[in-house]
Amino acid sequence: MDIIARVPAWFDYAAVVVFAATGALAAARQHQDIVTFGFFAAVTGVGGGTLRDLLIGAPVFWIDRPGYLIASLAAALAVWALGPRRAGPRILLWLDALGLAAYGVIGAAKAQGLGVPALSAMIMGVLTACFGGVIRDVLAHQPSVLLRRELYVTCAVVGAGAFVALSGLGAPPLAAGLTGFALAFALRAGAILFNWTLAGYQGSDDGGA
Amino acid sequence: MDIIARVPAWFDYAAVVVFAATGALAAARQHQDIVTFGFFAAVTGVGGGTLRDLLIGAPVFWIDRPGYLIASLAAALAVWALGPRRAGPRILLWLDALGLAAYGVIGAAKAQGLGVPALSAMIMGVLTACFGGVIRDVLAHQPSVLLRRELYVTCAVVGAGAFVALSGLGAPPLAAGLTGFALAFALRAGAILFNWTLAGYQGSDDGGA
Amino acid sequence: MDIIARVPAWFDYAAVVVFAATGALAAARQHQDIVTFGFFAAVTGVGGGTLRDLLIGAPVFWIDRPGYLIASLAAALAVWALGPRRAGPRILLWLDALGLAAYGVIGAAKAQGLGVPALSAMIMGVLTACFGGVIRDVLAHQPSVLLRRELYVTCAVVGAGAFVALSGLGAPPLAAGLTGFALAFALRAGAILFNWTLAGYQGSDDGGA
Repeated sequence: MDIIARVPAWFDYAAVVVFAATGALAAARQHQDIVTFGFFAAVTGVGGGTLRDLLIGAPVFWIDRPGYLIASLAAALAVWALGPRRAGPRILLWLDALGLAAYGVIGAAKAQGLGVPALSAMIMGVLTACFGGVIRDVLAHQPSVLLRRELYVTCAVVGAGAFVALSGLGAPPLAAGLTGFALAFALRAGAILFNWTLAGYQGSDDGGA
Repeated sequence: MDIIARVPAWFDYAAVVVFAATGALAAARQHQDIVTFGFFAAVTGVGGGTLRDLLIGAPVFWIDRPGYLIASLAAALAVWALGPRRAGPRILLWLDALGLAAYGVIGAAKAQGLGVPALSAMIMGVLTACFGGVIRDVLAHQPSVLLRRELYVTCAVVGAGAFVALSGLGAPPLAAGLTGFALAFALRAGAILFNWTLAGYQGSDDGGA
Repeated sequence: MDIIARVPAWFDYAAVVVFAATGALAAARQHQDIVTFGFFAAVTGVGGGTLRDLLIGAPVFWIDRPGYLIASLAAALAVWALGPRRAGPRILLWLDALGLAAYGVIGAAKAQGLGVPALSAMIMGVLTACFGGVIRDVLAHQPSVLLRRELYVTCAVVGAGAFVALSGLGAPPLAAGLTGFALAFALRAGAILFNWTLAGYQGSDDGGA
């Protein structure tokens, strides 16, 4: 049951940093100041994991370990200093993809490590992965990333689901985690590069308002 | 103080299912894929109750009972398969009304069962009832249901308030609950059918921005 | 470590009341009814502190003390009865500034009193101060106050940071608190009156979407 201790800590930090960078990039698009960069970075970076911890009743992971906040603020500074050039919007998409894939596995792993049943652990991975971006978009008053037609939630479902299934079948946590991460990232990469989608609902439900 | 054990479990499941269906219908309006249907259904279905449990410090109700998630996903599948036809938007309104009325009572009952004072228990019912729809609308980047002019929050206030008041006067929980449910639903039905409203604020406060 | 007991309770109530009034004013702008006034007032008034308490694992402050809800509802009634006249939008800004300054200190003080490390305590103050307004704006489907170009988050950072730093240096809590409050309020006042800003990000990052 000690799965969580074996999830490499740098993996967790990496997920925070890439999501934090997407938060800072969202602030950059709106020409915000450096403090707002930091705020968006911190909220986006730790938002998904915070929701997970609240839901499973664990102490919120960053409160007693300021390293996560410092990493988020460093990501904000880096975005400010290095700056997104022409490639900006694409960078945001790719960092978001890395965070999505990493957090799907991390969220499920932490929940599983605390004894949460398999289905709930998978959902926890999905929520953890998706809510960083959702909070960022809501704060930036943008349509949420959930509403884009390309695969997004699906990637988190597949990644977290593969991790939970492989763990349940007895695979070593690291192998299960890397498999889940790779599947989720590959799927999201396909969505970004080739516009992969699932069939959207085609009913004529909007005859009214 | 065992009120909560006596709230029929099917009532709780029914509230989750109808709210989940409204989440799936919101996804349908945006022509989302089946996975996003499930995501919206789950978040809307369990969102209000999750907020309640976080606020009163209870374990989040669905984490250890995957039945709630399964019910939400089944509602999403049903919406996808059966499809809202021309009547779609109306169905969403009516399901939302059922969920609003049910969750107002359930939220207040659970809070009361855990020893929360009467006023806070009533507010907990109101928050539980209203936040499923609020989260759904925020995720879908729609103006929140709170902003419509017809009675909405008021219905939850009346339903949860009646339940808390009747319980306080010694009425049996089931009778108090059904009365609160019926009042809230009747009021919301009147709002949908006859456009019932309370007087809106008429001050000239928007001379500025 | 008994800092929190020494934060005058009226200061805490005052922060709730002014934020509640801004919630009611947001409802007034949309010509909502009295119940929606109360809902917006309550959610805005206690929202920031609620997030703080959830994050640091403290019991949510208003659940067992209905006085906070009653104060919020009284603020809603007062706004309804007295009404914002021509000066409406400005009043909202100034009340919001008071709440921002007060909650920055209160949020940091409560976190510190529970043993949260300095950096996290400061961030807790910032989140507490900013999220009342963020929740209000999200519920009202308005661009969040975070997105305005004038100083906002910065004021909370400076106020909460000054409080935490002075406390760490051994200053009496009341002196540290009032200093933090005064700095944050002065900075926000300058932003409102003279449009003080920090340099916004100038990169050409939006060549794409």
